[in-house]
Amino acid sequence: MSQSFDIAVVGATGTVGETVVQVLEERNFPVGNLYLLASIESAGHSVPFRGKNVRVREVDEFDFRTVRMAFFAAGPAVSRSHAEKAVAAGCTVIDLSGAFTSAQAPNIVPEINATLLHSRGVAPCLVASPSASATAVALALAPLRGLIDIQSVTVTACLAVSALGREGVSELARQTTELLNVRPLEARFFDRQMAFNLLAQVGTPDASGHLPLERRLVEELRELLALPSLKVSATCIQVPVFFGDSFTVALRTAGAVDVAAVNAVLESAEGVELVDAGDYPTPVGDAVGQDVVYVGRVRAGTDDSEQLNLWLTSDNVRKGAALNAVQVGELLIKDYV
Amino acid sequence: MSQSFDIAVVGATGTVGETVVQVLEERNFPVGNLYLLASIESAGHSVPFRGKNVRVREVDEFDFRTVRMAFFAAGPAVSRSHAEKAVAAGCTVIDLSGAFTSAQAPNIVPEINATLLHSRGVAPCLVASPSASATAVALALAPLRGLIDIQSVTVTACLAVSALGREGVSELARQTTELLNVRPLEARFFDRQMAFNLLAQVGTPDASGHLPLERRLVEELRELLALPSLKVSATCIQVPVFFGDSFTVALRTAGAVDVAAVNAVLESAEGVELVDAGDYPTPVGDAVGQDVVYVGRVRAGTDDSEQLNLWLTSDNVRKGAALNAVQVGELLIKDYV
Repeated sequence: MSQSFDIAVVGATGTVGETVVQVLEERNFPVGNLYLLASIESAGHSVPFRGKNVRVREVDEFDFRTVRMAFFAAGPAVSRSHAEKAVAAGCTVIDLSGAFTSAQAPNIVPEINATLLHSRGVAPCLVASPSASATAVALALAPLRGLIDIQSVTVTACLAVSALGREGVSELARQTTELLNVRPLEARFFDRQMAFNLLAQVGTPDASGHLPLERRLVEELRELLALPSLKVSATCIQVPVFFGDSFTVALRTAGAVDVAAVNAVLESAEGVELVDAGDYPTPVGDAVGQDVVYVGRVRAGTDDSEQLNLWLTSDNVRKGAALNAVQVGELLIKDYV
Repeated sequence: MSQSFDIAVVGATGTVGETVVQVLEERNFPVGNLYLLASIESAGHSVPFRGKNVRVREVDEFDFRTVRMAFFAAGPAVSRSHAEKAVAAGCTVIDLSGAFTSAQAPNIVPEINATLLHSRGVAPCLVASPSASATAVALALAPLRGLIDIQSVTVTACLAVSALGREGVSELARQTTELLNVRPLEARFFDRQMAFNLLAQVGTPDASGHLPLERRLVEELRELLALPSLKVSATCIQVPVFFGDSFTVALRTAGAVDVAAVNAVLESAEGVELVDAGDYPTPVGDAVGQDVVYVGRVRAGTDDSEQLNLWLTSDNVRKGAALNAVQVGELLIKDYV
C-alpha cells in the first residue's frame, strides 16, 4: 500500500489516545501527516511516533479539513463538540467515547460486523468503537450464535483502574504505597479506598440503579450480536488491577449446551484465544499487551445443561479501545485505496 | 445463664479458629474450660482468651469426652479424622470444614433455618456451619423467597485471600511490596501473581470444570434456601483483597420484581444491612469486622422486570465462618440449660 493518509488523534495525551498512536505505528498504518490533538491544558506536550516527538495541538483550533480520518479518544464532551463537525468537513471519524447512539455511529468490531462497512465507499462517515467491555464479551459470544440459542446473558465486568485513565492508575499505586507503609489513607480520585478493596460502582447510577457503563454494555452487546431484544444483566465493578478487564459470563440457552462444540468454535474464532480446561487466563499474566480476548473456564451449569459459563480477560486499552479503533480504520481505508 | 460448658476449638491457630475464640469471648459464650487444639506442628503455641494465654494442644491426643461442644475449624481432613469420633464420645460438633454431606451434618445459619435445631434435645450431634459464600448469599436471598419466585441464581463470588488463611494474606502483602519496589516477582503460595491481578480459579476444577468451592456453594445454597432443585450458576474468583468477600448476584424470577418491596424486605431482614440506593458497601469500608451481610445496588434488570440484581459484601472470617458457628453453638446450648 503506497498511498498514505493524513490522520488526527484527538485526546492524544490520554491512556487510550497514546495507545492509538502506538498501535498506528506498530501496525504500519499508512499515516501521512499525524496531527495530535487535545484540550488546551495538554496542548504543547509531545507524544513519540516513528522515532520523533509529535507536538500536541489544541483541538479547538484544528481544521479537520486537513485530515482524512480522525480517532476521537477524548471524553464524550469533546466528541459531541467536534466529531460531527469533523465529518461535515470531510473527515471520517472513529469515535471511542460512546457519545453517539448506534443510529448516529454504528459500533464496529471488525471480527464481528465488518460487513456493515463493506462498500461504504469513500464518503466521510462517523463510526464508533464500542466500550472495552462490550468488545470483549461480544468477541467471545458472537461465534457461538450459530451453535447455541442464547436466551439471556449475565455479565460481571471487573474493570481495571486504567479504564479511568492515568489518574486511576496513579491513585491505586499511591493508595497501595500509603497502606503498605501504614500511613493514614485519604481517598482522592476514587470515592473511597481502592487498594485491596472492590468498588461496586463505576460512575453514578441512574434512577433505576444502573450505571451508564452498564447501560452502554447492554446496548452495545445487543447491537454487536445483532440480537436487539437479548436479555442482558450487567454489573460493572472496579477492581484493584492496573490494566486488563476480566468478565464472568453466564448464558442461559434454549437447549442443552455441547461444551466440546463450544470449545471447538472458540478455538478457531478470530480475535479470541482459548485457554485449555484446567488452566485459566489472568489480566496480568495473559491479556495485558495482547491483541486478543482470552477465554477460559468454559463449562456448563452445575446440574444444568442449558447453561454455559465463561471467564474472559482482555487488555482494556488495546483490544478494548485503541487496537479495535485502528482495526476499524484499516477496514475503512481499504475503500480509499 | 449461670451454667457453663467445656468447649474445644480445633484448628485454633488458624485465621478462623482464632476468630472463633475471639467471638466466644466477645459474645460471653458460657465457656467453662476452653481447650484449644491443633495439629502437632502448632501445638505449644498459645492464643489469648479472657486475658490469659491458652496453650494449644495436639488434637490427636485429645479426649473429646472432656468437652460438651467442639468447633472444628481445621481442614476437612482433620474433621474427617476426629469429628464423628468426638460425637460418639458425647461431644456436639459444629463443623466449619465442609467435610460432611448435609445428610451427615445439616448446614445451619441461625437467621435462616434455626428451626432445624429446635427440640433437638441434648443428645450430641454433628451440625455444619456452611461456607462463607453460601452464608452470605443465603442471608440475602432467604427473606426474598416469600416475595419473589426465584427461577435461577447466578453468583460471581469475589473471594478475599484470607479465605486461604494466613499464608494467603501474607503472600498478597509480600507480592505487593515486591512489585511496588520493582523487584522481580516469584509467585509462591498462589499459582501465579495475585497482587493487582484476578485469578479465575480457587482450587482445582473437576472434570466438568467446576471448583469444589463452586459445588459447595451451589449445594449449600439449595439446602439453606430449602430449594433443592434451584438452578445456581456459581463462579468463584480470587481477588487481591485481604478480608471481606463480595458477590454479584443475579436472579431470574417468575413474574415482575417489585424493587421497592424487595428493599422493604431486606431492610427488616435479620443478619442483613441494606445500603441506600446510590451508595454501596465495600469489603474494606463496611463488611470487615461486622456481623452482618451488607446488601446494595438492588435493581431490576435492564428492560427486564423479571430479573433482580444485588451486590453483597460480608466478612468471610466472621459472619462467613467463626461468628455463624458460634451463633449455632448458642442455639444448641439453649437446649442444655
